[in-house]
Amino acid sequence: MNTTTTSDIMNALRRVMDPELHRSVVDLNMVRDLSLSDGTVAFTLVLTIPECPQRDQLAQDARAAVKALPGVQEVHVTLGAMTEEERRAVLGGKDQPPLAAGHNQIERVIAVMSGKGGVGKSLVTGLLATALVRAGHRVGVLDADITGPSIPKLFGVRGPLQGSSFGVEPAVSRLGISLMSINLLLLEEEQAVIWRGPLISRAIQQFWGDVHWGRLDKLLVDLPPGTSDAALTVMQSLPINGVLMITTPQELASMVVRKAVKMAQAVNVPILGVIENMAGFVAPDTGRRYDIFGPSHADEVAALAGAPVLARLPIDTQIASLCDAGKIEEVVRPELDAVIAALKRL
Amino acid sequence: MNTTTTSDIMNALRRVMDPELHRSVVDLNMVRDLSLSDGTVAFTLVLTIPECPQRDQLAQDARAAVKALPGVQEVHVTLGAMTEEERRAVLGGKDQPPLAAGHNQIERVIAVMSGKGGVGKSLVTGLLATALVRAGHRVGVLDADITGPSIPKLFGVRGPLQGSSFGVEPAVSRLGISLMSINLLLLEEEQAVIWRGPLISRAIQQFWGDVHWGRLDKLLVDLPPGTSDAALTVMQSLPINGVLMITTPQELASMVVRKAVKMAQAVNVPILGVIENMAGFVAPDTGRRYDIFGPSHADEVAALAGAPVLARLPIDTQIASLCDAGKIEEVVRPELDAVIAALKRL
Repeated sequence: MNTTTTSDIMNALRRVMDPELHRSVVDLNMVRDLSLSDGTVAFTLVLTIPECPQRDQLAQDARAAVKALPGVQEVHVTLGAMTEEERRAVLGGKDQPPLAAGHNQIERVIAVMSGKGGVGKSLVTGLLATALVRAGHRVGVLDADITGPSIPKLFGVRGPLQGSSFGVEPAVSRLGISLMSINLLLLEEEQAVIWRGPLISRAIQQFWGDVHWGRLDKLLVDLPPGTSDAALTVMQSLPINGVLMITTPQELASMVVRKAVKMAQAVNVPILGVIENMAGFVAPDTGRRYDIFGPSHADEVAALAGAPVLARLPIDTQIASLCDAGKIEEVVRPELDAVIAALKRL
Repeated sequence: MNTTTTSDIMNALRRVMDPELHRSVVDLNMVRDLSLSDGTVAFTLVLTIPECPQRDQLAQDARAAVKALPGVQEVHVTLGAMTEEERRAVLGGKDQPPLAAGHNQIERVIAVMSGKGGVGKSLVTGLLATALVRAGHRVGVLDADITGPSIPKLFGVRGPLQGSSFGVEPAVSRLGISLMSINLLLLEEEQAVIWRGPLISRAIQQFWGDVHWGRLDKLLVDLPPGTSDAALTVMQSLPINGVLMITTPQELASMVVRKAVKMAQAVNVPILGVIENMAGFVAPDTGRRYDIFGPSHADEVAALAGAPVLARLPIDTQIASLCDAGKIEEVVRPELDAVIAALKRL
């Protein structure tokens, strides 16, 4: 019986090291297009240069590592080569001066995730950043949603950004939160970013390594929906200390959030807690509460995640208009106190 | 001045044909990892086999086609090779018996898109499919959201699917709608699909070509959020007749939806109309209406799209519970009549 998953394969390949760069082929982003079907594994091993002298040895090592997994009958390794841009990124440390990353000192990195779209990841990220900066922390927000970035609009900041000898300087909000988002690099906020996965991943890596964040106590990473390139890159390339999982009451949403929980578990990133957003609507005139999106399923998500429900945020009509006006920093939500306490303990 | 975009580059590469397969390198999915920066274009040309005899000619043709574009100063072409699975897919017609696609006759393909997550794409897709089948059409739904699939749950259908000599047989809903979704292929609905872009794209192509849809009047394609791999693959590989764009009142959401409009325009897919979901909440007891997510911005999206606002759907608490119970086919929404009329005219 085949009990091996693609994440088992990636974990096995993590032990295959490039003999020259002394880093694993997974960390070097050399493994591409991995597929697993009926005991047959196929992937491309993308070398730094096509004529790489270690190519046969690397392919043989990779094949052997995967072949040893239970249920794997066949392993097909195709050799490829990196684009010049990719090669430069991988070899960056070797033939380029140190980039911004060398000047950054970031104590804790927290990913805000959901799997599902439209549940309020960016809203919660913005509210938490605001609460943390009010509590005296140095805070940054890395908007990892490259095709649907919301962070600049929530904080009312715009590009263009400035460069310095340390790299790209992030935007700074009214309260002093450092912000990086693709929308700060576009001429128009509604410009579409029509990129396939590898470019999405590269942009996120640059937001981490080429941005001069300086000294931060907390960097919050706002993830896009899904469990594909962006989430994989954040979890595999950034030193994530923990994930906050955002859900809404609807059962349909929580099913997709449970997939995100399983992904975090598959890549061994700890889940700090669950936050339920859109938890009912209280009519401002009558004070009556309506469960617009049905009864809560947050406890089921929390049980699967092995983490507590840290907050439940009801829908507030005023917040949508403050967010649309770029004034999220004026919102104070005491329901998030337990989340802030958990982040302080981290 | 550099006025060339990545979509211009792809259009230029569409004219570069593989001399043996008589199809363009774009249609053959040979162009990967395209990047454009300051007049320098880089991409990988993935050949069917590494030792392809046309490799130098193809690379030269591709370079020349891109070099001719305004503002392009340098073109870097890296050569790579397909995995065996990819090669089989591309050569499918040559050394395999005809797949399901040869037995399918699908009159109209409509993509339901938004760019933004959680605005109700799947809900609208399900409601439209229901209304169409009630009007006597043969209807299918292709769930192109591989990492966050909602369609099976809405219709209360489960896998496993059956194969036949024509390919994979889709699931069939109570009213007779043919359904295909990754969640019908998973053992557990909450299993995470942790795939990078190329596998996402391949799955969508298989949902189109390897599923025995048979004769359909309308196939609705439910897109995931974003303007990356899934959206690109649907718009470039499937014969889309038009796009329905879903938005919500919040300005923040509509900004991301406008990006999706720009993407559809960039790849020349016509936008049929705009549907606004979550357009206010009417309290069931008092009948009072609350603009929970702020005032509408649908008209601005429609103006950019050059298409009409076809429907505005208020929030209905009963619908969330019917959807969670897999009974979307019991929902009747007369607000969608104008959308159905537009689809009938298509």
